[in-house]
Amino acid sequence: MKKTLQELAYLIRGEVVGDAGLKISGISSLDDAQEGEITFIANSKYLTKAKETRASAIIVSNKIEGIDKPLVITDNPYLAYAKIVTFFHQHPHPSKGIDKSTIVGDGTSIGKEVSIYPLVFIGKDVTISDRVVIYPHTFIGDGTFIDEGAIIYSHVSIRERCRIGKRVIIHSGTVIGSDGFGFAPDGNQYYKIPQIGIVQIDDDVEIGANNTIDRGALGKTWIKRGVKTDNLVHIAHNVVIGEDTLLVAQVGISGSTRIGNHVTLAGQVGVVGHIEIGDNTVVGSKTGVSGSVPANTIVSGYPHMPHRQWLKSSRCYPLLPQMRKVLHKLEKKVKVLEETFQQYTEERK
Amino acid sequence: MKKTLQELAYLIRGEVVGDAGLKISGISSLDDAQEGEITFIANSKYLTKAKETRASAIIVSNKIEGIDKPLVITDNPYLAYAKIVTFFHQHPHPSKGIDKSTIVGDGTSIGKEVSIYPLVFIGKDVTISDRVVIYPHTFIGDGTFIDEGAIIYSHVSIRERCRIGKRVIIHSGTVIGSDGFGFAPDGNQYYKIPQIGIVQIDDDVEIGANNTIDRGALGKTWIKRGVKTDNLVHIAHNVVIGEDTLLVAQVGISGSTRIGNHVTLAGQVGVVGHIEIGDNTVVGSKTGVSGSVPANTIVSGYPHMPHRQWLKSSRCYPLLPQMRKVLHKLEKKVKVLEETFQQYTEERK
Amino acid sequence: MKKTLQELAYLIRGEVVGDAGLKISGISSLDDAQEGEITFIANSKYLTKAKETRASAIIVSNKIEGIDKPLVITDNPYLAYAKIVTFFHQHPHPSKGIDKSTIVGDGTSIGKEVSIYPLVFIGKDVTISDRVVIYPHTFIGDGTFIDEGAIIYSHVSIRERCRIGKRVIIHSGTVIGSDGFGFAPDGNQYYKIPQIGIVQIDDDVEIGANNTIDRGALGKTWIKRGVKTDNLVHIAHNVVIGEDTLLVAQVGISGSTRIGNHVTLAGQVGVVGHIEIGDNTVVGSKTGVSGSVPANTIVSGYPHMPHRQWLKSSRCYPLLPQMRKVLHKLEKKVKVLEETFQQYTEERK
Repeated sequence: MKKTLQELAYLIRGEVVGDAGLKISGISSLDDAQEGEITFIANSKYLTKAKETRASAIIVSNKIEGIDKPLVITDNPYLAYAKIVTFFHQHPHPSKGIDKSTIVGDGTSIGKEVSIYPLVFIGKDVTISDRVVIYPHTFIGDGTFIDEGAIIYSHVSIRERCRIGKRVIIHSGTVIGSDGFGFAPDGNQYYKIPQIGIVQIDDDVEIGANNTIDRGALGKTWIKRGVKTDNLVHIAHNVVIGEDTLLVAQVGISGSTRIGNHVTLAGQVGVVGHIEIGDNTVVGSKTGVSGSVPANTIVSGYPHMPHRQWLKSSRCYPLLPQMRKVLHKLEKKVKVLEETFQQYTEERK
Repeated sequence: MKKTLQELAYLIRGEVVGDAGLKISGISSLDDAQEGEITFIANSKYLTKAKETRASAIIVSNKIEGIDKPLVITDNPYLAYAKIVTFFHQHPHPSKGIDKSTIVGDGTSIGKEVSIYPLVFIGKDVTISDRVVIYPHTFIGDGTFIDEGAIIYSHVSIRERCRIGKRVIIHSGTVIGSDGFGFAPDGNQYYKIPQIGIVQIDDDVEIGANNTIDRGALGKTWIKRGVKTDNLVHIAHNVVIGEDTLLVAQVGISGSTRIGNHVTLAGQVGVVGHIEIGDNTVVGSKTGVSGSVPANTIVSGYPHMPHRQWLKSSRCYPLLPQMRKVLHKLEKKVKVLEETFQQYTEERK
Repeated sequence: MKKTLQELAYLIRGEVVGDAGLKISGISSLDDAQEGEITFIANSKYLTKAKETRASAIIVSNKIEGIDKPLVITDNPYLAYAKIVTFFHQHPHPSKGIDKSTIVGDGTSIGKEVSIYPLVFIGKDVTISDRVVIYPHTFIGDGTFIDEGAIIYSHVSIRERCRIGKRVIIHSGTVIGSDGFGFAPDGNQYYKIPQIGIVQIDDDVEIGANNTIDRGALGKTWIKRGVKTDNLVHIAHNVVIGEDTLLVAQVGISGSTRIGNHVTLAGQVGVVGHIEIGDNTVVGSKTGVSGSVPANTIVSGYPHMPHRQWLKSSRCYPLLPQMRKVLHKLEKKVKVLEETFQQYTEERK
């Protein structure tokens, strides 16, 4: 499949500078692109590399000097790249229907144009909406609702009564709706608190591989529209994650914490329970968030602090032994000064 | 199903103050409770909220002033809540027998009143005891023993020869009995050491979702009675976890470490191998335990230290740049003092 | 099965001192070994323990005084132990063929002497080579290639077009080839970048349980020969891991990072994206690697620093409150000295 530069420019709302009729066969990185392909410059630091690419055309945000290849100029070349990759590589899931080895419980309704692969287990009173794709070895518990166009990869467990929104993607091995970690101390032992809530995942969320999202103790654990999680992320019971928030790999969020919209938690961040993180906040990797964080801030460290402060303090950390040495030296010097001074004073009496 | 306040009080060994015949339909939090439901106050800081709840009765540890609703007074309202939730919401797993799509190996014995869902794989010479529940897509390896009343959720792997105690609950995606991480250096390469031990999980343990508990290299990895693990916990080969110990989400424990009874490891804690953590010890979140820890202590930080010391030090951390500045200033001032002093001394000669 | 000491010595290229005809029934640790078994001393600190072992023979690196049991002397007793365990405990996977409950797609080719357990899903155009073992509930996507002698445990997902080398072992619950975490900002929302690359795992790699290894955005994520990963390890898209490198449990590596040969990343290490870690480097547990690391170094801390420096600084950390107190005291003292001095100077005028 080839497309003209003009057609691709239309797709990404860009403007062609050069031969608009040029045929393009695909998109690749500056280094890997071959003749006939288009590439992109998402960051001006790669401008020099652009002169060496074998690509036949380049997506850029500004006209660049010294390159006589056709260009497509657009505000956001990285987004343009994403759209063109999608265009060349989208594999629509053709409807496969329901494999005969799949188990479907009583009272379950299944929509149109679904693809339900072999060896899937679907419980009772489940709703599978139109165009849903469910890969092999997936478990869907009783009463769960899966909205239109959701894609559930292999080995996902979605337990009873959960709600999965439109176009949600859940990667392999993820567990949705496991019991929250709730126990009441009873002497030295622990008494299990039944976890009777649910998990609700809104539209256009993507959940990475081997995540664990616990059901609410009461009420719900709620992942709002547009959230994206990376792999091995843990979300405890009754957590609320705001719209368009990113949770990078191995993040863990404790129970009942509320995270705002458009927040980013970088890799291996841990967040204590029962706090709030405001909108648009960024939390640096490995941070331990130990209390609520206001909106529009950047925090790092453990306990967390403003990111700039952490940067400065972390630069001092390797200097600690030297600081300690200086401190000892000063202590001695000051003592000497004080003593000598004392002598003088006495001599003067 | 409705119960009188008197019946609920009997269940939780509490005492009714007010209308003991009041009919109660369920239990919910202070905020969410509706008329006809009971709620609870587990922490005195919620006393003021109690005046606004719509609940028809309240479980408390002491009589509260200014509220004319019926009360149930009990030592441990949180435990009472757990017991009442259990009472209203327990879904006994009715025996479903063995689904015909499940594979059962030769020499395997299966007890009474079990529920073995579809698409389960059970190997050879396995023992499944009475009232065991096994959800779909679970793998039980050859020679494994599962004791009475255990509940194994979907996608759990329990490899060969492991032992699972009475009433153990294992959440989805957890792997029990994978090979420990054992390799002998052979020049620059690594030679795999066969992991020929087992995992033994004692009675009343609950294991969260997507845990990994490796089998012993020799001997066993041993999770003792009443242990509760959260999600994404890693337990290496030959680790021993004492009774009623809690491992919060994303904890990792290295090989051959022994953890005492009634210990709590908070979220994202890492523990080195071949050490001991004493009974009743609490390890703060994200702590790196780098050596043995005595009983009855609280530790935090990396390397770990007494929690109070860590709290104080972590308050100093953001002040490091300021401390460094002061140190430099003092260095200069002392130098000036020394030099001037030196001059004086010389002048006096 | 019993073997003479001479036969075992031949296997490990060792030299017998004592009765070479002694029959040995197995191998065990110093503490656990029984009469008739052999044991080993991998570390000289266990020499005293050797006098108490019930084992009938000992593998050592040097002749030991005061023990009159037969010895086998070899350069590397730990490797010898690994080889003898393998010898006594290797369970060759006898070919079981392909279970009839397994689903095999069109165009898939399956080699000789394979063991494909029940309830496996194998897609279209897959290649399963000779002597491959695939445990139940495994998912193999379209076009994936699995080379000779690989062992895939239960609940592994290997998505489309991935390549698995000879004798690779993949433990339960691991996900190979999930989509990388790639999104282009589009206003406040995120646009998914199709992840069209693959994962390539070379020969003799062992991957632990519940790992997640994402496919390349473009190109490949590449795990080279002899790499061993522990459990719950996350490897992002387009990462390259060099030969014979060890990734301990709960390590996370961000996108496009390149790790050299024979590197060790200890438990819970996090590595940022787009950097390089040189050959033979060791990264201490819980380290946050925030930039490239040269070859042959040891680093720790967050941000990472030379390990020795981190050790020294981390010893100062608990002293911070004391250092701060001293600093305040010195500040006051110096102020007093300056003021008194000032007075003197004025008096002398």
